Amino acid sequence: MTEENVVYVGNKPVMNYVLAVVTQMNGGISEVSIKARGRAISRAVDVAEIVRNRFITDAELGIINIRTEEILNNEGISTNVSAIEIQLSKEIV
Amino acid sequence: MTEENVVYVGNKPVMNYVLAVVTQMNGGISEVSIKARGRAISRAVDVAEIVRNRFITDAELGIINIRTEEILNNEGISTNVSAIEIQLSKEIV
Repeated sequence: MTEENVVYVGNKPVMNYVLAVVTQMNGGISEVSIKARGRAISRAVDVAEIVRNRFITDAELGIINIRTEEILNNEGISTNVSAIEIQLSKEIV
Repeated sequence: MTEENVVYVGNKPVMNYVLAVVTQMNGGISEVSIKARGRAISRAVDVAEIVRNRFITDAELGIINIRTEEILNNEGISTNVSAIEIQLSKEIV
């Protein structure tokens, strides 16, 4: 979960993920993907909006993708879950 | 809330909104916007994915926008909430 360029949003407080994105971008990474599945999708949108409006105001929204992923539960039964990927980028000076 | 071309996703079961989108598209509307705010954002993504994968398989994802909206609560205090808009379109034969 420490893959560079990607921040996976889960059930922790939203500022944890905001900090992860800001840290990557301030460390010289010009493009970060924010990914989430299921109910964490709303939080991923919050993360992108908070980074963009409050912390890195020159960050720009890139491509936003949605798709359906198949996951296996403990009993081996597959269910579908929606997923989102939001790209944020900024120019490195 | 019965504006043509727009389906506002809230807290009802996801299939209510899927039906609304499918009804509009089968009624000859070629492009439908699915809009949601806050925690309903995840459900809006589910709606788009279910319509696309199960009901109108030739529907294509258009632009996906996210933004921040300011809302006033009962005491007149403003808070920010994230919002999403997902465009779905299909060719009318």
